[in-house]
Amino acid sequence: MPPAAVAVASGDCGLSTDSVGSKGWGLPRYGAELYGCKEAVRREIHSAREVIALVMDSFTDMDIFKDLQEACSKRHVKVYILLDQASFPHFLKMCSNLGVNIEEQKLMRVRNINGNTYYTRSGAKIVGKVHEKFMLVDGIRVTTGSYSFTWTDGKLNSSNIIILSGPAVEHFDLEFQILYAESKPINPWLLSCSQEREMANQLIKPWISKT
Amino acid sequence: MPPAAVAVASGDCGLSTDSVGSKGWGLPRYGAELYGCKEAVRREIHSAREVIALVMDSFTDMDIFKDLQEACSKRHVKVYILLDQASFPHFLKMCSNLGVNIEEQKLMRVRNINGNTYYTRSGAKIVGKVHEKFMLVDGIRVTTGSYSFTWTDGKLNSSNIIILSGPAVEHFDLEFQILYAESKPINPWLLSCSQEREMANQLIKPWISKT
Repeated sequence: MPPAAVAVASGDCGLSTDSVGSKGWGLPRYGAELYGCKEAVRREIHSAREVIALVMDSFTDMDIFKDLQEACSKRHVKVYILLDQASFPHFLKMCSNLGVNIEEQKLMRVRNINGNTYYTRSGAKIVGKVHEKFMLVDGIRVTTGSYSFTWTDGKLNSSNIIILSGPAVEHFDLEFQILYAESKPINPWLLSCSQEREMANQLIKPWISKT
Repeated sequence: MPPAAVAVASGDCGLSTDSVGSKGWGLPRYGAELYGCKEAVRREIHSAREVIALVMDSFTDMDIFKDLQEACSKRHVKVYILLDQASFPHFLKMCSNLGVNIEEQKLMRVRNINGNTYYTRSGAKIVGKVHEKFMLVDGIRVTTGSYSFTWTDGKLNSSNIIILSGPAVEHFDLEFQILYAESKPINPWLLSCSQEREMANQLIKPWISKT
C-alpha cells in the first residue's frame, strides 16, 4: 500500500506547497512560490483529465467556476457538483452574473444535498446543512479542508486545505457516492426564477441603453 | 520518512474509522463500531498525554469542552485554544452555562484570532474570520476537516474530518505557531460581562428559590 501524499495549503499564512503527488510530500516554501487555498484548488482543476467530483457548502467564486467550465468545454472533463441546498441560490446568482445557464452545460451535473433531519420534542423539523468540503480529481487525488469556494474564504478568512493521494482517496470516493445517492436534482423553481431574472435583464438592458 | 496515517470520519454518513496510528490506515467499518466526527475528536482528546493545541472557528460543544477540562485537571495535559474572535462570546456563554471561569483553568490558555484585514476603495475596513479547524495532540497527530465543535455540526450538519500522523503534522505545528503568534489575549470586557452575568445569576437564583 503506497503512502499517502499530504500537502497543506493555508489561506492567508504564507504556508503553501510546491507539488503534490503520490511519491512524496509537498514541502512549504517561503518566497519562492507562495500560493494559498484558492490557487491550490485551481491547480488541481487544471490538472484534471477525466472527472472532477466535488461537495461544497458554499460556491460563489467565479474564477473557480470558470476553471470548471473550461475543464468541461475544452478538455471534456466531466464535473459533478453537490451543493448545500441552502446556499444554492447564491451559486445560481453567480452563474446568472456570468451569463451561464447550468442546464446547458453538457458535461456538468449540479445537484443539491442537505444535512441530517432532526425532529424536536414539539415535532418541529430542523434540516441540517452540508459542511463537508472536498474535491476528487480523476479519482486519484482529493482536496479537502475548511476552505469554501467563496471570495471571503479566498481573501478574508483564514482557511486550510490538504491534498491527499493514495488509499485515503477511496474513503472520499465512497463518501461522494453516498452523498450523490442522497442528493436531489436542483429545484426547478429556482432555475425558472433565474431564467426569468435573466429574461427581465435582457428586456431591461436595451431599454436602459436607449434612455 | 514514515507514511502518514489518514483516517476519515464523517458526520452523518455512517463512514467511520476503527483506529488511527502511524503504522497504518484506519479502515471504515460498518455496523461493528460506528462513530462520527464528535466521537473521533473525543477519542483523540482522551488519548492526549501532554499537550493539545487547537484552532477553531466555533466552539460550543459542552461534551468536548468537558473532555478538555478533564484532560487538564486529571491528566495534567496542557490545552491551548485559539478561537475566532467573532464566535468567542458563544464560547464564553457555554463556559458560563457550565459554571466554568476559563481564567481559573491553570493548564488551559484561550486566545482570540482573526482572519485577514481588507480595506475597500472607500476606506472601509473588513476583518475576516478564522475558518481553520484543526487539533494537534501531543505533537504527533492532527485532526482536521470541516467539523466545528458545535452541537449542529455533531448532530445536524454533514461534516468530515481526517486524522493524520507522520510528517503532515509538522505543517500544522508550524501553522499553529504562526497563528499563536498572531493571536491576542481574550477581551477582558467580554470576560467581565460574563462574570457580571454570573454574579447576577448568583444573586437572582437564591431570590427565585425564596419566592
